[in-house]
Amino acid sequence: MIDYQLLQALYAVVTEKGFDRAAQTLFITQSAVSKRIYQLESLLGEPVLIRTKPPKATELGVKLLTHLQQVKQLELSLNLQSSTEFVDKQLPVSVKISANADSLATWLPEALSVPEDYCDFKYRFEIIAEDQTIALNRMKAGEVMISICSIDKPVNGGKVFELGALRYFVICSPAFKKRYNITSLHQLTELPCLVFDEHDKLQHQFLTHLNGSLPKYTHICPSSEGFKQAMIAGLGYGLLPSLQLGETIEKGELVNLMPEFYLDTPLYWHCWETESIQLEMLRCHAITIASKRLYQII
Amino acid sequence: MIDYQLLQALYAVVTEKGFDRAAQTLFITQSAVSKRIYQLESLLGEPVLIRTKPPKATELGVKLLTHLQQVKQLELSLNLQSSTEFVDKQLPVSVKISANADSLATWLPEALSVPEDYCDFKYRFEIIAEDQTIALNRMKAGEVMISICSIDKPVNGGKVFELGALRYFVICSPAFKKRYNITSLHQLTELPCLVFDEHDKLQHQFLTHLNGSLPKYTHICPSSEGFKQAMIAGLGYGLLPSLQLGETIEKGELVNLMPEFYLDTPLYWHCWETESIQLEMLRCHAITIASKRLYQII
Repeated sequence: MIDYQLLQALYAVVTEKGFDRAAQTLFITQSAVSKRIYQLESLLGEPVLIRTKPPKATELGVKLLTHLQQVKQLELSLNLQSSTEFVDKQLPVSVKISANADSLATWLPEALSVPEDYCDFKYRFEIIAEDQTIALNRMKAGEVMISICSIDKPVNGGKVFELGALRYFVICSPAFKKRYNITSLHQLTELPCLVFDEHDKLQHQFLTHLNGSLPKYTHICPSSEGFKQAMIAGLGYGLLPSLQLGETIEKGELVNLMPEFYLDTPLYWHCWETESIQLEMLRCHAITIASKRLYQII
Repeated sequence: MIDYQLLQALYAVVTEKGFDRAAQTLFITQSAVSKRIYQLESLLGEPVLIRTKPPKATELGVKLLTHLQQVKQLELSLNLQSSTEFVDKQLPVSVKISANADSLATWLPEALSVPEDYCDFKYRFEIIAEDQTIALNRMKAGEVMISICSIDKPVNGGKVFELGALRYFVICSPAFKKRYNITSLHQLTELPCLVFDEHDKLQHQFLTHLNGSLPKYTHICPSSEGFKQAMIAGLGYGLLPSLQLGETIEKGELVNLMPEFYLDTPLYWHCWETESIQLEMLRCHAITIASKRLYQII
C-alpha cells in the first residue's frame, strides 16, 4: 500500500510551488518534506519531481497525483457511508477547480453557491482561472477535482457532463464604431482588437470565419471585467459573452456590431469517476444553474 | 557597444517563456536564438539565463533587460526629435504594463484610452495582471515599461507618480448577512471569506485590524468580476473596491457591512527615468483619469 503522507507531500510541493510553502501547509519542516519526496523516489526507483522553480511533477508524479485525487474522492464518499460520528457536515469539503475566466466572471459563482435547503454540505472553493482550451491540463496533472472547459473528451479515470455554451458577440463602443467609421465588418482586421491572453483565439477565429484574416493590432487585457471596460473605453473591439453584456447595450455603452453572428463556446464539467456524494450534489446544482444561464445546444 | 540583437533575443526568451516561441516572434530559427544567447554569455563571461522551464533571467540578465527597456524608451523619444520621415504616428507604440487586477477591472481601461484630440500617438497595450504588492517585480525584472502598484519607492533608474487610492469596503449579499445572522462584525472571522489569490491579504488586514484574527474559512476566486459575482451569489464576504460596486447596493444585490470602515490601497504609476514623450502623454492622461476615479489622499 502506498504511504499517502508521501503523496501528500508531493501534492503540496507541486500545488504550493516549492518545498518551503509545502512545509508550511503540511505543518512540518522543509527538510521533512524533502525527506518524504526522497523516500517516495527511493521506493519507486524513479524521480517524481523535476527540481525546477517551481518544481514540476514527472510523468510518474502526475500519475501519482491523479491517483491521489481519486483516492480523496473515494474517502469523501466513504466518510458519508460510515457512522455519522465520522461525518462532520459542518466541516467544509475543499474543492479545487480549474475554470475559464469568462465562466468565473459570469455563471459559475452562482452555480457554486449551493443553497442550504439543497444539501447540508459546506464547500471551500479554490478556483484556478485558465483558458477554456487548457483548463483540462490541471485535471490531467491531477491538480484539481473539477475542471470547466471547452473540451468534451474525459481524461483517464474521469467523466464529463455537458453544461451548455457561452455565446460570444462582436462588440465595441459606439464611440469606437464612429471613430473608425465602421460600415463593414471587413474593416475590423485593421482595427485595434482586444485579446484576453496568449491562449485566447476567439477573435482570431471570428476574423478567420469572416474573411480569412487575422487581427493586425491587438491589446492584451487579461481580466474579464477589464476586457469589457476596455471596450466601453473604446480601446478596441472584441468578442464578449452575452452574459457579460448586462444593460450596456440599452445604456448605449456598447454596441453589437453583428447581432446575427455569434460564436458558441460549449462548456463541460469534468470530474473523476470516483466522484463523492458531496461533489455529485455540487455538480447537480451547477448543471441546474448552467441550464438556466448558458445556451443549450440541441 | 552592446549588440542589441543579443539583448532582444534574451528579452524574447524571457517574455515568451521559451526559445521556440522567442524564435517565432523574432522571425529567426530556434538555433539562431540559442546562438545569440550563447554569444551574449561568451561576451560577458557569465550566464544571463537560467535554463529552467520557463527560462529565467539571471541577476545579470535582469540588469540587461532593465537596460534594454530604458534604451527602448530613449529610442522612442529620439525618433520623435529626428526628421518626421522617421516618425510614423500611425504605427502604434507597444506598451507593456503590469497592473493590479482591480485597477484593470475598474479605472485603468479608461485611463489607457487616450482620445485622439489629446495626442496623435497610437498605443498597443500588453497588460499583465499581478497583485498590487508584486506588480513592481516585473518592472525590477526589466519586463515592462510601466507598473501600477501600491509601492511608492521607485525602482533603480525609475520614477514614480501618485495616482490616488482604491477604497475597499466590507461587502456581502443581503442573503449571506441574513443566513449567518450577522449582527456583529466579529462573527466574520468564522464565516466564509473571499480571497482573490495567494497574494491578496486585504481580508486578512481587515480582520487583523478589527480584532486581531485571521479568516478561518476562505474561498479563492482569482477574477475581479468573479469575486463580485461570488459575493452576490452569497459564497462569502470580502473587501470590494467602491468603484466595482456600481448599483449593486441600490439594487439590493450587495450590502456594505460597515460603511464607516474602509481600507485605502494607494496606487502609483512607475515608469523609467528615460520616459519617452509617447509614454509621458499616456501618463498625463492616465493621471487625469485617476484623479477623477480614485480617492485622492491628502
